[in-house]
Amino acid sequence: MAPAERTVDVVISEVGTRDGLQNVDTIMATDAKKAWIAAEAAAGVPEIEVGSFVPARLLPQLADTAEVVAFARTLPDLSVAVLAPNLHGVRAALDSGAHRISVPLSVSETHSLANVRRSHARMFEEIAAMVAAIAEQPADARPAFEVSLSTAFGCTLEGPVSEDRVVEMAERAIALGADEVGLSDTTGYGNPAQVKRLTRRIHAAVGTERLTGIHLHNTRGQGLANVMAALDAGLTTIDSSLGGLGGCPFAPGASGNIVTEDLVFLLEAMGLCTGIDVERLLLVRADVQAALPDETLYGFVADAGLPKGFAYAPARHRRSA
Amino acid sequence: MAPAERTVDVVISEVGTRDGLQNVDTIMATDAKKAWIAAEAAAGVPEIEVGSFVPARLLPQLADTAEVVAFARTLPDLSVAVLAPNLHGVRAALDSGAHRISVPLSVSETHSLANVRRSHARMFEEIAAMVAAIAEQPADARPAFEVSLSTAFGCTLEGPVSEDRVVEMAERAIALGADEVGLSDTTGYGNPAQVKRLTRRIHAAVGTERLTGIHLHNTRGQGLANVMAALDAGLTTIDSSLGGLGGCPFAPGASGNIVTEDLVFLLEAMGLCTGIDVERLLLVRADVQAALPDETLYGFVADAGLPKGFAYAPARHRRSA
Repeated sequence: MAPAERTVDVVISEVGTRDGLQNVDTIMATDAKKAWIAAEAAAGVPEIEVGSFVPARLLPQLADTAEVVAFARTLPDLSVAVLAPNLHGVRAALDSGAHRISVPLSVSETHSLANVRRSHARMFEEIAAMVAAIAEQPADARPAFEVSLSTAFGCTLEGPVSEDRVVEMAERAIALGADEVGLSDTTGYGNPAQVKRLTRRIHAAVGTERLTGIHLHNTRGQGLANVMAALDAGLTTIDSSLGGLGGCPFAPGASGNIVTEDLVFLLEAMGLCTGIDVERLLLVRADVQAALPDETLYGFVADAGLPKGFAYAPARHRRSA
Repeated sequence: MAPAERTVDVVISEVGTRDGLQNVDTIMATDAKKAWIAAEAAAGVPEIEVGSFVPARLLPQLADTAEVVAFARTLPDLSVAVLAPNLHGVRAALDSGAHRISVPLSVSETHSLANVRRSHARMFEEIAAMVAAIAEQPADARPAFEVSLSTAFGCTLEGPVSEDRVVEMAERAIALGADEVGLSDTTGYGNPAQVKRLTRRIHAAVGTERLTGIHLHNTRGQGLANVMAALDAGLTTIDSSLGGLGGCPFAPGASGNIVTEDLVFLLEAMGLCTGIDVERLLLVRADVQAALPDETLYGFVADAGLPKGFAYAPARHRRSA
């Protein structure tokens, strides 16, 4: 008989090991990263963005990404995601065997030039080349390829961003062969009405299966309100970061990922299964704080604890085939 | 021609001057309170809970409530609310001329006994007497009378609270003659699914016009997510506190009101008019911090600032009669 497999209502994608670590000064030892990833996977986190294939001189914090991916792939039932800013990075990601590759595409061209020094035209050429490189892989080893629409909710440099342009760029990325697009509130400008509107427009333009995930920040305290809007609009994967570690170094003032612990508490409390054990997650947080003693971790549940009599959402089990 | 009057989509009821001040050690000078209230009213806040009619030996911070109400009543277009825990307090509130009186009724009887030393039976007797006292007022001077269902989302002493009991107590309060009931997440246990469920059940039981407001905490970071649920369910008045000041002294660990500045930003950003100028509110915050130098103020917008190119919700104007 096949083992029972727990399925979830909402997929939490932990980004602390990438987005978090690239924004702290401390370079975390590879063994500490592996311990963090293993502990989160053991707590039930289904997907972890474990690193980024960028030049080590730009982000020495993530120079060991290939080794970290190799380790993470040994963990059962974990989706191992990485970020890659360019074709070179995608090739390295393919060599590493990551299950999922995301490339950031800034809807604000000003931010794109500041972040990866490329115009939109240049980025779309690069995306086409990435798709071609991925297509060369044997079908059973082909990772999922997502174009993440950053600054989709506004830009600290340009200000408001045209929603028409977000939708057009989503359509173009899918037309070029990306499996999915993602929405990213890089700057912490997003609001719930905007989250619903953009999600629905992109779903209408490219299909619901082409946009399932969102990356939100808590810069103005609106992170979990935006999560509610994302779920209402039908998204099922939410990025978050343990202790809220991280942000975007090229979007000034835009610190503050959603806190994984608080997000898991919120979803489980409202009856949505994440498959994650919050209490174990809080222990991982303590370990990460010990490994990064100079960094501030954020979040409320770590201070307040779980409510008396707290009950997890009903777990959903199904038989594997 | 009558002056144009701005109407709002969501009424923000500021509780920092009551819930906030009763939970800090500093006793704020009466003049500083008046300045705070005047400045918030000038920033567009439509309702302020300015104090509580409790014995001065229990809460010396609020001993000047009658004087503060008298001042607040001189401010144009401000709804002046107070809390009163018992009949004696309601009589004092009536004498003061407050526009709105709230009495807290703990759904958790254990919390009721700890908070106001009264059983449910005793509280309902008291509520009946309060209704009678208010009915003696001339019709044009009669304040709105709300029974606020505290610990409606769970209790730090009892744990989970029966939703059936919340609905029954709402029905009983309305049957006894209260104008409205309110939902209060005294302990920061509430989640969005619960907010929607309870609101809809109480609306079905006593009518939508009998439940319009909610008091939420941000104890576990879920405050603004719960606001989204409250708005979805049709509530239109949200309590919040400048700088998140306050909590409940008799519910251990249950600190953390929703931050007014963050709430106003969220609502205006998503196109819901509050009538409040966030930038002026941030100046009031600075004044309150100066008056309470030893207290920690919370909130994200104060640190992050407004997004570049931020636009308020379209103001809704109507002609007064």
